[in-house]
This record gives sequence, structure tokens and C-alpha cells, in this order.
Amino acid sequence: MLDLSFLQYLSATARAITLGAPVPEADNKAANGDYDPVTEIDRAAERALRAAIEERFPEDGIEGEEYGLVRPDAPRRWLLDPVDGTRALICGLPSWTTLVGLLQDGGPTHGFIDAPALDELMIGAPGGSSLNGRAVHTSACRRLVEARFSTTDPFLFIGPEAEAFTRVRRSVRLARYGYDALAYARLAAGHIDLVVESGLKRHDWAALVPVVRGAGGVIGNWQGGGDLSAGAVVAAATRELFDQALEQLNR
Amino acid sequence: MLDLSFLQYLSATARAITLGAPVPEADNKAANGDYDPVTEIDRAAERALRAAIEERFPEDGIEGEEYGLVRPDAPRRWLLDPVDGTRALICGLPSWTTLVGLLQDGGPTHGFIDAPALDELMIGAPGGSSLNGRAVHTSACRRLVEARFSTTDPFLFIGPEAEAFTRVRRSVRLARYGYDALAYARLAAGHIDLVVESGLKRHDWAALVPVVRGAGGVIGNWQGGGDLSAGAVVAAATRELFDQALEQLNR
Repeated sequence: MLDLSFLQYLSATARAITLGAPVPEADNKAANGDYDPVTEIDRAAERALRAAIEERFPEDGIEGEEYGLVRPDAPRRWLLDPVDGTRALICGLPSWTTLVGLLQDGGPTHGFIDAPALDELMIGAPGGSSLNGRAVHTSACRRLVEARFSTTDPFLFIGPEAEAFTRVRRSVRLARYGYDALAYARLAAGHIDLVVESGLKRHDWAALVPVVRGAGGVIGNWQGGGDLSAGAVVAAATRELFDQALEQLNR
Repeated sequence: MLDLSFLQYLSATARAITLGAPVPEADNKAANGDYDPVTEIDRAAERALRAAIEERFPEDGIEGEEYGLVRPDAPRRWLLDPVDGTRALICGLPSWTTLVGLLQDGGPTHGFIDAPALDELMIGAPGGSSLNGRAVHTSACRRLVEARFSTTDPFLFIGPEAEAFTRVRRSVRLARYGYDALAYARLAAGHIDLVVESGLKRHDWAALVPVVRGAGGVIGNWQGGGDLSAGAVVAAATRELFDQALEQLNR
């Protein structure tokens, strides 16, 4: 078992870089006319996280958004997204997070979603999820018509995915956009009931899965399975709500 | 001239009610199958704001979202939205704000956008806008293709408005959703460059106009005029960007 204090230490390590810096200028990582912003804060925070993990667990694999993968054959692998929500960061909005996930034997077992600007560290582990050290649980919401729903960008969905998203959006009580990984932390805390996304990378969902499951929620792909490698994710407060969302997505 | 310390006092008066309360349960104000949430926090904060204004300026008119209008013929009128972004509040998200605007001779002259959960009080006045007492200015962004754009709900737009919105969305560098009035405060601070919305009420825009103008930005309706009574609003960091947005909206 991993000592959770190491996760807290990693959160503090990243915050020492990310927190309190002025709103940064962004470089564009995308070459084809798209826009994929990255800032020096992203890079410096990932370097600091990598150094902290290397020092404590030198045999573990590490895979990060900005600096790639080392020790691909290690039985344990750390997944790092130093700033999830760079678009929010460069707009001076506080919803950006730092994501750290731990895969063991291929499955995510531990992770955190840290929102430094909000001072909200949400840790997920087999023993449960906690927000700043206080145990949390998802809401009891079981019906789409009562659900508080969130997705990051409603215009990311294309073709049949867009139609599926529209069916869900029209079925829920309210929809919020633009929260990136923070939406999953709010789901774990019981304040959002449903998140539907696609296009997530491994360094995203590796942190989200332990947080959602540790809080009693359900997270899987759009067909209901646990394999998230295609990047399409549904997270729900309850099994009943998860099943209702799948029904709309796959109608 | 209004003493700005009275605006700070009003902000503190509302925060005493709104801040630190647990995430509230919402009632539904809408009758027709829609969802328009209101909480006891909204109501209590408006009562406190009204009492503070009545005590200091007993001859002024007051118009609030929850309790209507008194002294409609007064030359000065206070516009109150105790919680703008109730949807965010009930999702445990920190982007909700308290809005206070002052109309004199029909035009908004003073106002504030206060984000208590973020400790960000943005005051707008003829002498300039300030965030927690520090002067702010909009960005120098003059081109849509470089603009950080925000609107609260991309699915609020209907018919030709939806097409106009889509043209703007496809022209900008990045889009963020769901920030309600906080987007205008971020625009005043230079971190968002363009906001386009429709359906705003007077108790919304009365606070936004002094903040945006005091920071050097431009705010008007979709035809470029200053009359916001129809609720369709464009706010931009610069005149050039404002004009480019109008071009896309009215093509």
C-alpha cells in the first residue's frame, strides 16, 4: 500500500511551482492551426513531480504530459498532468488542477485531483476518497432528470458522439461546462452528479478513477466497461444514474 | 459622487451571509418544466443588501432579483443580484458572484462584481476599476483569432442568435463557458478578452457596465449601441475587438 502522505507531499511539491505565479503566457503546442496551450508553469511543475517520485521510488515508471515516459516495463507507473485546464489558468480562472495517478498491474489504484487556487486536494485511494483530509461521498442522485451534469467542452463531441451528448444534455436538470478534472472532484464531493467526456488521455483518467470510485461513484467507458483507453468516460454518483446515462448515450 | 467604501461595505454585508455556508439546497422558481434555482442564501443576502441601502440612502430606489422594485421614480436606483450563478453555487463551484449596480439618470455609473469564494471584489466606477483595491485594465487584444472568449451557456442562444454565436466561437482562440458575471470581472482584469451573451436582466448588466468601462473595455448591445435593455451584450477588451465581434454577430 502507498502511504497517502506521499500524495500530499507531491501536491505540495507542485503547488510550490504553480501557486501564486502571475497568470502566465502560453505557447501553442499544436501545429495544424489548432490551439493547445502549454506554459512554463506546466513544464516546471512536471519536472518537480518527476524529481520527487524518482527520489522516493526510483524503480517506478513515470509518464507525464510534457516529458513522456521512462521505465515503461516497471510494474508501477505514475501518470502526471501538471496543469489540467491550462485554458482556465491562462484566463485567470481558478478551476485548473494538478493530476497524479498511480497504475499498478495496469489499473489505477491511487490518485489525486488538486485545485491549488481553491486549496482543494481530493485524494482517491482503495480506503476511500477525501477532500483536504475529510472523507467524501458522491450524492444519492439516481435520475437523469434531477442530475447536475458537467462536461468540459460541449463542442469537442463530433458526429454520433455529439448526438449522444445532446440527448444527455437535454435529459438532465442543469449543465455546467469548462471544469476539466475539477468536475470529477466535485462529483466525488457530492455536488455534481454526472460527468460525460471523450478524448481523455491516460494522464487524465488515471487520477480520476481512484477519486470517483473511492467516493462511492461509478466510472467507466460509454459502453459501461472499465477500459478507458479510448478516452470516452462516464462518471456518475450512483450505479442507477450511470446506467441511465449509458441508455441515452447508446440509444 | 458615491464613496467607494460604501460599495465595499455592501460587499462585506452580503459576504456575511453567502460565505462559508454549506452548499445549499435549491428551490425551483420556474413553473413550466424549466429549471431556475433559488436558495435561501439568495433571499437572505438580498434582504441584507436592501437593509444596508435603505439605512444609508433611504430615498434611493432598489430593484432586486428576488424582492422586486421599491421607489421606482427615485433619480438613483440600486440593482441587486445577490447570487449570480446559483447553478455554480449549488454545484459547489466557486464562480458565483454578488452583483450590485447603481443607475443614475438611467445610466449605470457604479457597480461591483464580488466573487466571495475567490475573495475577488471587482469595483467599477467613473475613476476606474479595481480588484481588491488594485487598479485593473483590460488586455490589449485586438483580434478575434487571438481572443480568449467566454459565454455562460452556449445552448441559451436560439435561431439566428445561435448561428451568430457559432461564427464568433469558431473565430476565437479559445472558449470558456459557465462563468456568469465572473467572466466580465476576468475581462476587466485582462485575462479574458471577449464575452458575448444574451438574455441578461437589468440587475445583471447594471453592475457589469461600470466594471468593464472603468477597466478600459467596451460594452454594448449586439448592434454596437449602449442600450442593453434587450439583454444581448458584447463586452470586449478593446474597441477593435468589439468591432470584429459585431461583424461576426451581424454577418
